[in-house]
Amino acid sequence: MTVTTIPPKIKFLVSPTSREWVYQALANLDIILLDHSHCERKAAQVALSLMFRYPASTELVRKLTAIACEELEHFELVNQILERRGIPLAPMTAPPYGAELKSQVRRREPERMLDSLLVSSLIEARSHERFGLLAIHIQECAARTLRDRELAQFYHSLMASEARHYGVYWTLATTYFHRDRVMERLAELAIVESRLLSTLHPEPRIHS
Amino acid sequence: MTVTTIPPKIKFLVSPTSREWVYQALANLDIILLDHSHCERKAAQVALSLMFRYPASTELVRKLTAIACEELEHFELVNQILERRGIPLAPMTAPPYGAELKSQVRRREPERMLDSLLVSSLIEARSHERFGLLAIHIQECAARTLRDRELAQFYHSLMASEARHYGVYWTLATTYFHRDRVMERLAELAIVESRLLSTLHPEPRIHS
Repeated sequence: MTVTTIPPKIKFLVSPTSREWVYQALANLDIILLDHSHCERKAAQVALSLMFRYPASTELVRKLTAIACEELEHFELVNQILERRGIPLAPMTAPPYGAELKSQVRRREPERMLDSLLVSSLIEARSHERFGLLAIHIQECAARTLRDRELAQFYHSLMASEARHYGVYWTLATTYFHRDRVMERLAELAIVESRLLSTLHPEPRIHS
Repeated sequence: MTVTTIPPKIKFLVSPTSREWVYQALANLDIILLDHSHCERKAAQVALSLMFRYPASTELVRKLTAIACEELEHFELVNQILERRGIPLAPMTAPPYGAELKSQVRRREPERMLDSLLVSSLIEARSHERFGLLAIHIQECAARTLRDRELAQFYHSLMASEARHYGVYWTLATTYFHRDRVMERLAELAIVESRLLSTLHPEPRIHS
C-alpha cells in the first residue's frame, strides 16, 4: 500500500499531516472510528463549556449552540457506523494533543477566551484536514468492501461541517478581538499545534 | 391575582409545587425565563457528562445523545424568546436545589450511576410539572399581551418533551438495575427532592 496523494493545504495549519499518520490510520480504521466518536462528544462538550463560561456573550452562545448540536449529530452517526461494524463503544486513552493544546490557553481573561476559541479553531481545522485524508485514502487504498466505501463517503460528508466549524471559531475570535491580535496569536498556536503532531503518537488516534 | 388551579399530580414527585412558587414565578417571568435558559444548557451538560462517564453503555449513550440535542434546541428557543423580550443573556446564581440533589449521589459505582440517573429523572419530572404550571397560570393570570400568550404556549409545548425525558432517565435506570432497587432508591431521592423545595428560595428560579 502506498499513499501518493499530497495532503490538501488547509488554511490555519502550519504543517500538513504526515504520510505516517495516514498509514497508521488506514491500518487501524476501527480504532480511529472509535476515537472519532470520542472526539465528536468532546467537541460538543468544549462548545458547551465555552457557553457556560461566557453566558452573556450572545453571539458566542448562539453559534456554539449550533455547533454543539451538530457535533452531537455526528457523534450519533459515528456510533451508528460503529454498531454496523460490530465495534462496541468503549473508553479510550486520549493522545497528548488535546491536553497540550489546552495548556497553551492563558489563564487570564480576555486572553483565555481568545486562546480557547483559537485552539478549538485549530482542532477543527486539523479534523477537517484529516477527515479529508481519510476520505481520499480509504477510497484509494482500503475500500475493498461496500462498508469501507460507505466509510470514505461518511468522512467526505463531514468535511464541510468541520470546515464551517473552524470558520465559526475564527469568526467568533474576530468578533470579540481585533483582527491583528487574532492573527498574531493564531500564528503562535498554529506552530505549537503542528509541532505536537510532528512525532507520530504510537496509538492510532484522529489526533495522533 | 389568585392562583386557584390545583397543581397537576406528577408521577415520581412526592409533593406538588406550592402556590408560593407560582406567585413568585408569575411576578418574575423575565428572571424565570433567563434561569430557564441556564437550566436547558445545564441539562445538556449533565447528559453529556453521563455519556462521558459511561462511554461503553450503548443504550445510555444513544438515549442521552438525543436528550442532549433536544435540550440544546430548547436552549436556543428560550434564548430567542429572551431576545424578543429584550432580556440580555447573563450569568445567574443557581439555587441550592441542583447541588443538594447532586450531593445525594453516592460516590461508588454502580450506585453512582443509579443515583445520577434518578436525580436527573426527578429534575426533569419537576421541570415538567413547573412548565405545566407556568403554561396554565400565565394563560390564566398574566397573559395580557400577545407576548405572554406566546410564552404560555411555549411552556405548554415543552411539557411533552420534559415528560419524555424523565421517562428516559427512569427507563435507563431500569435497563441497568433491577426494578425493585430503582423503585426503592427513587422513593428515597424523591423525598429529598420535595423537601428541598418545601421552603421557597428567595430568588425566583425554575427550581426555587
